[in-house]
Amino acid sequence: MSNIAAIILAAGKGTRMKSDLHKVLHPIAGRPMLMHLMASVDALEPAKKVVVVGDKADQLRDALGDSAETVVQEPQLGTGHAVQQAESALKDFDGDVLILYGDVPFVPTSTMQAMIDRLHSDDNPEVVVLGFEPEDTLQYGRIVATGDRIEWMVEHKDATEKQRQTKLCNSGLMAVRSKDLFALLARVTNNNAAGEYYLVDIVNIAVQDGRHCHVVKTDPYDVTGINSRGELAAMEAEWQKRRRVQAMADGASLIAPETVWFSYDTQLGRDVLIEPNVFFGPGVRVADNVKIRANSHIEGAVIGEGCEVGPFARLRPGTVLEEKAKIGNFVETKKAHLGKGAKANHLTYLGDAEIGAKANIGAGTITCNYDGYFKYKTEIGEGAFIGSNSALIAPVKIGRDAIVAAGSAVSRDVADGDLRMVRAEQLVKPGWADRFHDAMRKKKAEKR
Amino acid sequence: MSNIAAIILAAGKGTRMKSDLHKVLHPIAGRPMLMHLMASVDALEPAKKVVVVGDKADQLRDALGDSAETVVQEPQLGTGHAVQQAESALKDFDGDVLILYGDVPFVPTSTMQAMIDRLHSDDNPEVVVLGFEPEDTLQYGRIVATGDRIEWMVEHKDATEKQRQTKLCNSGLMAVRSKDLFALLARVTNNNAAGEYYLVDIVNIAVQDGRHCHVVKTDPYDVTGINSRGELAAMEAEWQKRRRVQAMADGASLIAPETVWFSYDTQLGRDVLIEPNVFFGPGVRVADNVKIRANSHIEGAVIGEGCEVGPFARLRPGTVLEEKAKIGNFVETKKAHLGKGAKANHLTYLGDAEIGAKANIGAGTITCNYDGYFKYKTEIGEGAFIGSNSALIAPVKIGRDAIVAAGSAVSRDVADGDLRMVRAEQLVKPGWADRFHDAMRKKKAEKR
Amino acid sequence: MSNIAAIILAAGKGTRMKSDLHKVLHPIAGRPMLMHLMASVDALEPAKKVVVVGDKADQLRDALGDSAETVVQEPQLGTGHAVQQAESALKDFDGDVLILYGDVPFVPTSTMQAMIDRLHSDDNPEVVVLGFEPEDTLQYGRIVATGDRIEWMVEHKDATEKQRQTKLCNSGLMAVRSKDLFALLARVTNNNAAGEYYLVDIVNIAVQDGRHCHVVKTDPYDVTGINSRGELAAMEAEWQKRRRVQAMADGASLIAPETVWFSYDTQLGRDVLIEPNVFFGPGVRVADNVKIRANSHIEGAVIGEGCEVGPFARLRPGTVLEEKAKIGNFVETKKAHLGKGAKANHLTYLGDAEIGAKANIGAGTITCNYDGYFKYKTEIGEGAFIGSNSALIAPVKIGRDAIVAAGSAVSRDVADGDLRMVRAEQLVKPGWADRFHDAMRKKKAEKR
Repeated sequence: MSNIAAIILAAGKGTRMKSDLHKVLHPIAGRPMLMHLMASVDALEPAKKVVVVGDKADQLRDALGDSAETVVQEPQLGTGHAVQQAESALKDFDGDVLILYGDVPFVPTSTMQAMIDRLHSDDNPEVVVLGFEPEDTLQYGRIVATGDRIEWMVEHKDATEKQRQTKLCNSGLMAVRSKDLFALLARVTNNNAAGEYYLVDIVNIAVQDGRHCHVVKTDPYDVTGINSRGELAAMEAEWQKRRRVQAMADGASLIAPETVWFSYDTQLGRDVLIEPNVFFGPGVRVADNVKIRANSHIEGAVIGEGCEVGPFARLRPGTVLEEKAKIGNFVETKKAHLGKGAKANHLTYLGDAEIGAKANIGAGTITCNYDGYFKYKTEIGEGAFIGSNSALIAPVKIGRDAIVAAGSAVSRDVADGDLRMVRAEQLVKPGWADRFHDAMRKKKAEKR
Repeated sequence: MSNIAAIILAAGKGTRMKSDLHKVLHPIAGRPMLMHLMASVDALEPAKKVVVVGDKADQLRDALGDSAETVVQEPQLGTGHAVQQAESALKDFDGDVLILYGDVPFVPTSTMQAMIDRLHSDDNPEVVVLGFEPEDTLQYGRIVATGDRIEWMVEHKDATEKQRQTKLCNSGLMAVRSKDLFALLARVTNNNAAGEYYLVDIVNIAVQDGRHCHVVKTDPYDVTGINSRGELAAMEAEWQKRRRVQAMADGASLIAPETVWFSYDTQLGRDVLIEPNVFFGPGVRVADNVKIRANSHIEGAVIGEGCEVGPFARLRPGTVLEEKAKIGNFVETKKAHLGKGAKANHLTYLGDAEIGAKANIGAGTITCNYDGYFKYKTEIGEGAFIGSNSALIAPVKIGRDAIVAAGSAVSRDVADGDLRMVRAEQLVKPGWADRFHDAMRKKKAEKR
Repeated sequence: MSNIAAIILAAGKGTRMKSDLHKVLHPIAGRPMLMHLMASVDALEPAKKVVVVGDKADQLRDALGDSAETVVQEPQLGTGHAVQQAESALKDFDGDVLILYGDVPFVPTSTMQAMIDRLHSDDNPEVVVLGFEPEDTLQYGRIVATGDRIEWMVEHKDATEKQRQTKLCNSGLMAVRSKDLFALLARVTNNNAAGEYYLVDIVNIAVQDGRHCHVVKTDPYDVTGINSRGELAAMEAEWQKRRRVQAMADGASLIAPETVWFSYDTQLGRDVLIEPNVFFGPGVRVADNVKIRANSHIEGAVIGEGCEVGPFARLRPGTVLEEKAKIGNFVETKKAHLGKGAKANHLTYLGDAEIGAKANIGAGTITCNYDGYFKYKTEIGEGAFIGSNSALIAPVKIGRDAIVAAGSAVSRDVADGDLRMVRAEQLVKPGWADRFHDAMRKKKAEKR
């Protein structure tokens, strides 16, 4: 464990999201933005994590569970005030504090570490601010600095024309020793138009004290903040774009990269071919030489070497495909384990199923795993052949090399090597169809 | 009703479309472009609507029905000539005339109203022209104006270098009092290279008469004309882009906005989540807190609060999902009403069906609603459970809380609380499969 | 046959692809890039085609079959050395040689011909080099030329600042008479940092000899080289973009062109409407007035006039749809021939099937064409009606106008005009469902 504490601000209302879900819980790449940030923080092995909550606090507490402490900011009187709420939670902590924002989710761990390292650099700065140089400086506060040393922090609206020329903007992220932090915050006032306590003021106070304050620069992408669903979508797009480039560099072929969506934790092997329009939800691992055809939707699935999936496949959590298994079109799997070379090529639902190697699941097969109250398991042996349009009424076990005749609704186990057929007599009514057609054509003509 | 008449020009051949369908009937956002324009016109509550037709006139008459009068321009001798064809249709009309184009479909009602209002402004202009300032002025005719007052209208090819510097282009749309319009048109000649009567000449005639003519400016998007399928696709793209931004601003999350297609009349609630690749045809209303998963195709459907749809769902017209109903993958609905919390999660076709609250429709269920001649209805009671792979042969009624056993083809009604099972005996042939495998392997070996 | 030989270099390792598949066998628009190039070459009707192979040579030999000769370059000592390997294969050939690259796949035949024609122009050049002027000259070697006459070829790293100003870059492609080529190559040395024999040196040698060498210019797109999966995807994107523009210009409507993927050989008629997200694999022909709805995946299929396909249709090779046939959602066809007006609208698998005109295939129909060892055929007569959820166990023949009752598993032929019904008794258990619900609710409550 390191001697670092992270304070994460997440009390804001996020009204521009127009949502009943807390802003920082909106997902990017399949994970709530707050959790992206927490994962980066966790890699520092911090001694303490304090999330400052306010609006929709319960949602945040539920999402965080035991993984972080929460403190309430109520009323919300500015960023400085927000950080102050963490003071009691850190009263026994003496170390470095990182101040982060729940809606700035993609700060790399290495950047956080660089801020901490700078705090301990020879120049011994009192505050380290994370700065960035965006293409468009918009309304960002500016950092007036000589080299890395900060001379003054200035809000955009208060900046002189010359100060506005500087491209160096304030991300709001800071690193400060815990003792310094709360001492400085105690001196911040709310003598401003909004009547709020601004965190940024601690830098100017320290500068006025003659202390050194430093800026560490980072890529604007790393400190992108998200305030609306439009910005959420833009961030998702940028994240996906980078992930696709990485996937291709690592040896996957994406025919139309712009139509493949990854989750934060998708793992892809080499020589994976991905056709257009494939969606990866969380929890997917794909081995080498896998072909994922167009229009597939994959979540929580492990796909072995040489498998083929899709087009129009839908793999749900708990799906495991061993080597060279094949899932074809309009097939859904859920908690389904397919052995080596097993195939389910068409119009099938496999739920709560254990399927042996080389088993062949015919078109239109349904595992009836639910009776309206409980779920039951279907076991299918190696080399078994399930005839098309069969219903396997779980719990049921089909033996090794067994055959189920097409159209059967199988409610009892089938032993190894047996045939099970559930099929009524082939009833013929000669000429019935001709008579029916005549009668109906007549009726149709009358109706006109 | 207002004292406005609209003349809509739609006689052109539209040869660049290479289509047997009239150009202005090609759809954008699920509605023929002419109908977009008519809807904007209708909001003015005009006294008269006259569509000037020529090529493929019958298609236009069919599309318009009683909603507008048509007059024929034959032969087609220019825009001035086209407008003249409307004279007899407007002989009893004394008011303001708007001249519009069927292939310029996205003129906002407010812009039309602004043109009419200007006609009645203190300066009392004789003609009001709608101008725009495109990024690239291309071959557009220019409006030479001082302020809003037009000095001269000039075709691109006749323009001096100085006139070409002006960014102000002529959209062709005009507002003129009916009496002035036809008087001016009567003075237009065809002394030009093409031998055509140009509408734009009425402006210069009025100017030469010493009358005031005004320009009203609008956004280039509002007067985009469409002449080819490439331009059609570009307009669709721009329309969709704007609609997506609006959807997000209103509180919907679009993971990949660029892969969601709306119709002109799609209505979305707040906290609606839309995964990639969702297509909305006309007539869709989506309530709050709905989740629409990837690859869904939705037309003519009303989706209640808290519903979940897809992935791979296909909702067709007449689908109504009440609160928290669920339609899963590879499920098609058509004229299907699902009560609160009813579910059809997998591989199902529900057509002409009334389904009670909390009913559970098993995987692979098919409502057999068609006998080749007529359609019939399926009714399923509240809390009923339809076992997987069942066929419900309509007309048929499954009672409240009734159960249909998996694999049943049900042709008779099932009473409340009853079980219906249509299943043959479980026939076993011990060792048959083993013998079959042996025989077939042998045969396969022989064939090699 | 022309007096042209093509030498295609394809010996490189292509390590940046990170693939077990040879770089030039990676597909673009559904065809390996080498095969795109070979098709352009074939249009010249060359006397000889020699592919220089090295890494993964067997893959190339398999792909080429008898269509070209291969020679091995081992070890790989540069492009000049590579071309030299073709000398023995061309020992009986006396004519023009084109030097091409397997990873530069989109050189048009007309460009190749222009190079050959230039070789025979009045100026009688010894070497013709294909040049291009990219937006960004990157690290490309430059062609210092006066008009079309080359003064010097210079590598980027050796170029003077002034030479780097020239935009004219060397594509590496050349045309040379066979005798000149090998005579020049014999004089190339490897006195350079890499110790390699560079093909480009033959130009400078010829220039030093006082011979004329010419540059023929081409569009940068035509000489795009592909070295990574990122470049592969970029080329695919550019190819698709151009193909979509062409499709629209030819009279197809693409609602969202950026989500339609064509193959190299896709043929489209006029007034074809394509909704978003449609993927065309190789071998597809689409007639006039066809509607292809969203999310369709089509390979090796012939689609007749007025057909409607999708949404969510999956047509596999061997599918033939005659006029006005209809394939609806979640339907898969493979080696299936549908007669005029035949329909399979929902949740169906048609494999190895011959289906008569106007036949109606009900929802959930499965042709059981496979027994685990062999494939069998299903024949369905004109006007036949297959009830929903039926399994047709091939080989089987359903007669003209015959009817199969819903839910039947048909294993024997049905005669013309007959009805076949395979359905067990409608067993009723009154009150069973109510008792079941009671018992299960109790059990569920106990489990909590």
